Amino acid sequence: MLFLSRYPFKTLKSIPKISDNKWTWLLLQAGFIRQEMAGAYKYLPFWLKVIQKISDIVRDEMNKTWASELLLSSLWSKENWTKTWRWDTVDVLFKVPANSSSSKKEYALNCTHEESITPLVWEFIQSYKDLPISVYQIQTKFRNELRAKSWLLRGREFLMKDLYSFHSTDEDFKKYYEIQKKAYTNIFLKSWIKKEDLFMAIADWWDFTEKFSHEFQVKIWIWEDNIYVCKFCWQAHNEEVIDTNNFICKNCWAEKEVHFNASEVWNIFPLETKFSDAFDLKFNDENWKLKKVIMWCYWIWISRLMWVIAEYSLDEKWLVWPESISPFSHYLICHWEQNRETAIKIAEDIEKNILWSEVLIDDRDLWFWQKAWDADLLWIPNRIIISDKTLKNWWYELKKRTSEKTEIIKI
Amino acid sequence: MLFLSRYPFKTLKSIPKISDNKWTWLLLQAGFIRQEMAGAYKYLPFWLKVIQKISDIVRDEMNKTWASELLLSSLWSKENWTKTWRWDTVDVLFKVPANSSSSKKEYALNCTHEESITPLVWEFIQSYKDLPISVYQIQTKFRNELRAKSWLLRGREFLMKDLYSFHSTDEDFKKYYEIQKKAYTNIFLKSWIKKEDLFMAIADWWDFTEKFSHEFQVKIWIWEDNIYVCKFCWQAHNEEVIDTNNFICKNCWAEKEVHFNASEVWNIFPLETKFSDAFDLKFNDENWKLKKVIMWCYWIWISRLMWVIAEYSLDEKWLVWPESISPFSHYLICHWEQNRETAIKIAEDIEKNILWSEVLIDDRDLWFWQKAWDADLLWIPNRIIISDKTLKNWWYELKKRTSEKTEIIKI
Repeated sequence: MLFLSRYPFKTLKSIPKISDNKWTWLLLQAGFIRQEMAGAYKYLPFWLKVIQKISDIVRDEMNKTWASELLLSSLWSKENWTKTWRWDTVDVLFKVPANSSSSKKEYALNCTHEESITPLVWEFIQSYKDLPISVYQIQTKFRNELRAKSWLLRGREFLMKDLYSFHSTDEDFKKYYEIQKKAYTNIFLKSWIKKEDLFMAIADWWDFTEKFSHEFQVKIWIWEDNIYVCKFCWQAHNEEVIDTNNFICKNCWAEKEVHFNASEVWNIFPLETKFSDAFDLKFNDENWKLKKVIMWCYWIWISRLMWVIAEYSLDEKWLVWPESISPFSHYLICHWEQNRETAIKIAEDIEKNILWSEVLIDDRDLWFWQKAWDADLLWIPNRIIISDKTLKNWWYELKKRTSEKTEIIKI
Repeated sequence: MLFLSRYPFKTLKSIPKISDNKWTWLLLQAGFIRQEMAGAYKYLPFWLKVIQKISDIVRDEMNKTWASELLLSSLWSKENWTKTWRWDTVDVLFKVPANSSSSKKEYALNCTHEESITPLVWEFIQSYKDLPISVYQIQTKFRNELRAKSWLLRGREFLMKDLYSFHSTDEDFKKYYEIQKKAYTNIFLKSWIKKEDLFMAIADWWDFTEKFSHEFQVKIWIWEDNIYVCKFCWQAHNEEVIDTNNFICKNCWAEKEVHFNASEVWNIFPLETKFSDAFDLKFNDENWKLKKVIMWCYWIWISRLMWVIAEYSLDEKWLVWPESISPFSHYLICHWEQNRETAIKIAEDIEKNILWSEVLIDDRDLWFWQKAWDADLLWIPNRIIISDKTLKNWWYELKKRTSEKTEIIKI
């Protein structure tokens, strides 16, 4: 239960001029985000609540796959990055000068964590009995982008879930991969993205292996990628891996395709033994033969996923939060001076009886239409109105954002 | 419920050579932390669980003071830091070269957030009715320290709760300050630090005001600060603000003192109008006169607090987690092949019936003494043993880490 009169961040009456598309201005106007600089954002309290809810959904599904959550540091010494030769080749890596007597000392500010996780698990892997290992974190990533694009879609600082899995055999990986795929599907379904709009596309040829990486794409009007889906086997392809004038499916070799616009929310990369080689990550198999550990990584861009969900859940005028990640479940409008006690009582009843519910009470001294406007703008899925008229008959009005009807609820 | 056989990070048999004191090697040996570089740490899963629990305690108490949680970015443009002249004066500020065509472009990597929060609330403050405002975040901070000291105590990267409050009058601040003081005391009591070991000391003379800052100090053997407490009025003083050879209490002017060793866990600074001046943060009072907003900030170093709690909760040989922040409440030892089903049943019963309980089941194929060693090393507050012998009589053994006795519990 939160009282809006105690909440410092107000919505804007007019459309902020700095936005470049409708969904961005809705986020700005509703007071969910503010820009700190190109590619970095301030997350205001209601947006942070959404972030925390989606993170909990991700966490819950990852834990079910027996992955252990940890937290690696953002700053690293240069040393491990030179072992993989990536200090000089990853152009989006931030290099931070250290406050030291030697003016040349620098730290790496992470954009990915293979150089940190591989030496860590190295300490704990001796034999095949120690495998598989699967660890993940939900952490801020930094990318030294030349140009920050499309607001939350590609930033210099963003929230990422990165999971790394370590296997003794390809078969073992494949088994775990199916478990992960199920977990990812659960995450997207819980965030109310429909199964028919989810595509697992073949993406870039990964530079140090001869395999494709895969990405989960969501079919959506505001897009970054062009996706070509085979009409025969329904395999999706990122445009980067096909000839767009002469489509041939990489799976079944059929030649008919459908074209979609989509946004990427998940990525999986075969790291193979690239990092095992660099850090000498080996294990003893059943016959005491030393073998290289096989490694994969799996990403979800949390802040990007939220952006996609926000765009995906729009109606003709506003966006509507899916109930599972909405900052509040109910927005309660009342004449505060007159009906204070009843309002609190109704909110308490709702929070007690409806799982995961949380009520935002608009107790401000404002006109009804101003409150109704904010209820719409904040996209809370359920709106409750109580007034002297409704209370006379011991009921309140409930309107779901996804429905046209107003329901009458007995108190 | 977690099964240890599925957990990748094992404890160490011997004391790691890289540690510099007993409590650090216990944290290393138990597999709670690993060093990434001097001043930056990898938080392994059990340590992260403790972090999450203490963060939730902090969050809960902050929300009760009507503070709103948000999340500011780590990277900022240089612009706001030059407005406060701190770009050149804060020597621990990391300055990060941008990937840009102009080779001189740099970003700030935060060590504190006044330059970000002040322009944000500026947008939402017009009149005295918009005040007070209180916002906080739990976020990673970066400090470009010349030397990183004492492991987790003073690092280059660490977790901080920073709260900023904005007031129209000093009286209003004082009212809110008392509320915060109560919240902080609750946090420390919930983390099992005894009231008699908590001191609110007068600390540094704050550079841009004529007021002292205050810090919460915990009386502890492993320390950073020397605290002088007045025997008369019990006011504590950091040694930096007194003449240690000739003590005079800053509160009652008495001249008798007691000397303690202590570690700082909380800090409060009067920011006064320093940042309001820099960013022109003003409000209209009741008479439509423009006045400057008064600003304070309140810190808790989360990772440092955990360190202090860990040291504070030691017994003669090990450390014992307080139940409120222990990664698990119970450590269950059994012969897995024989008693698997009963073990799971007992764990389920405990998690269902005891609030906040979570059971770590040691289902590994190891000797009993190896499991008992890990139970001790991981500092879980309750140890449960089931065996054929105990099960014959339908009971299990429960030993609290803080007690000598073993209890017999009926199943």
